[in-house]
Amino acid sequence: MTKTITLAHGNGGAENNELIKEVFYEAFKNEILEKSEDAAIIQNGELAFSTDSFTVSPLFFSGADIGKLAICGTCNDLAMMGAKPKYLTCSVIIEEGFEVEQLQRIVASMKKELEVNDAIVVSGDTKVVPKGAVDKIFINTTGIGEILYKGISSNNISEDDLILVNRDIGAHGATIFAAREGMDMNSNLKSDCNSLYPQVKALIDSGIKITALRDATRGGVSAVLNEWAKQSNICIEVDEEKIPLCDEVRGICEMLGFEATNLANEGTFVLAIPKDDVVKAIEVLHGFPEASNACIIGKVTQQYNKKVILNSSWGTKRFLDTPTGELLPRIC
Amino acid sequence: MTKTITLAHGNGGAENNELIKEVFYEAFKNEILEKSEDAAIIQNGELAFSTDSFTVSPLFFSGADIGKLAICGTCNDLAMMGAKPKYLTCSVIIEEGFEVEQLQRIVASMKKELEVNDAIVVSGDTKVVPKGAVDKIFINTTGIGEILYKGISSNNISEDDLILVNRDIGAHGATIFAAREGMDMNSNLKSDCNSLYPQVKALIDSGIKITALRDATRGGVSAVLNEWAKQSNICIEVDEEKIPLCDEVRGICEMLGFEATNLANEGTFVLAIPKDDVVKAIEVLHGFPEASNACIIGKVTQQYNKKVILNSSWGTKRFLDTPTGELLPRIC
Repeated sequence: MTKTITLAHGNGGAENNELIKEVFYEAFKNEILEKSEDAAIIQNGELAFSTDSFTVSPLFFSGADIGKLAICGTCNDLAMMGAKPKYLTCSVIIEEGFEVEQLQRIVASMKKELEVNDAIVVSGDTKVVPKGAVDKIFINTTGIGEILYKGISSNNISEDDLILVNRDIGAHGATIFAAREGMDMNSNLKSDCNSLYPQVKALIDSGIKITALRDATRGGVSAVLNEWAKQSNICIEVDEEKIPLCDEVRGICEMLGFEATNLANEGTFVLAIPKDDVVKAIEVLHGFPEASNACIIGKVTQQYNKKVILNSSWGTKRFLDTPTGELLPRIC
Repeated sequence: MTKTITLAHGNGGAENNELIKEVFYEAFKNEILEKSEDAAIIQNGELAFSTDSFTVSPLFFSGADIGKLAICGTCNDLAMMGAKPKYLTCSVIIEEGFEVEQLQRIVASMKKELEVNDAIVVSGDTKVVPKGAVDKIFINTTGIGEILYKGISSNNISEDDLILVNRDIGAHGATIFAAREGMDMNSNLKSDCNSLYPQVKALIDSGIKITALRDATRGGVSAVLNEWAKQSNICIEVDEEKIPLCDEVRGICEMLGFEATNLANEGTFVLAIPKDDVVKAIEVLHGFPEASNACIIGKVTQQYNKKVILNSSWGTKRFLDTPTGELLPRIC
């Protein structure tokens, strides 16, 4: 039987990782790619380089739109490597018949978010394809950042580190799901989509040592923790009750049986930092309104190598696995 | 009436330029972007940075496929700024149900072409979207090149320069057209899709002064010459009979009324070089089998400012304008 690509291959979870390893890493192999970081580190460690294509549906949703998302997504990948976003390219593929006014709204969002990052778009590409060849508009942004803090890596986490998140999780995934299903949440649910460079810069400026940082996009916090456990050859133990969740996301998860840790985020990151720096890091993050829920969620142990354990409030333990299956397509 | 995006907005010609200027340059304005070069020059002139998204249909065609095209397209944009392609990102958007074997063929083509450029893919992104949200597969590549030869610019062409092409023109556009229409050319017609860095490096290594270089992709040679005339504030006079054309492309143009100078190319570039270096440049290019038709096609004058004039073999003259209208969508 002919093997075909499934939606699960784009889930940010297990099948996605498999496809990337078997097809892309296999063909393109090189040391930089194999580090599997959020951004490649090039030019003797001076620059970070990262790409993302955005296919989100709907284009406009509570808290952001594809334009803001396209700038945040790439700038955040750079920030996660301790880099200041500097130069971006912007490549759009537009369906014939798309409204110019909508394009202008999207581009205005991009402009606004570029300013937050103090970054500029220096090169672009515009393709228009016939009706039906693309759903409305897809945007690729690729960015170069200047590394301010060296040595951040998902490969060096140890028992000296604690695991934190900068805010309550799952808001982006829940928002897109609610928008797509036409659910009237009658609530304050909105995407966490946000530029993370200001928070990262504040952490660096306050002298905090950063072992690892990663924004929990497709595949959510579960995917990040599992990749870290594998890459750093450690066990991560997370306390379920410590993971911050807003009421709206909790409600959607309870109603539909989702795991909040599998939901995508676009302004939420997981940090591994040395124990001695944790109090200060939380204090710094609490200086940002969007990070007022920043907290410790877990620790590093040697209990089960390359595994993530979730401790429930009932005292039970279970493995928190890399998400599998279709999850929600076109989340970003 | 609501203004919408049309296929003409992606033609590489007049409407495309208008959209880019009115929507993207307007929002993103900065000095680098406004230079309108093939690639942005960043980091104190040390690096070139360029992006392209590829939506070509069909995916496989005589002489190349979307994979080879995606590497050539971005590496050529870097080479056109005198840069050695170095690091690329690769972002794919795949339609659910796409065959893994086809993906592997595409990726194998990319790998082979990366080797020609001695470049590596250091970061990537893989999205899978539901059936109907994209036609099979779109690929974005974004590249960083190290500038070997500084000062190439479309803004500095003068009467001291002559205008050359490196080979016969229009093969890519004619090939895609023939493939899409199911025309059996019963001929050797194939895309010129090819990496141009080796030819550019040979020109640089032989000490030739290069004023401007540009690969004549969407919009063809007409678009390049018109942009140059505008950007350098000059008149370019081209002799129609000097423009090299292979028999197959000439045949398609005669049969269908196309202008060969409007057809897209993917391994064909236009050069502006000082008169004293022209003989040597042609000698260097003739060292490459694919550039055996390299020749002078025109000169720079002051006759009509910012215009391109085509001198026919009958002694008549006409303006060669920037292409307009729908042209052929999904050529690259």
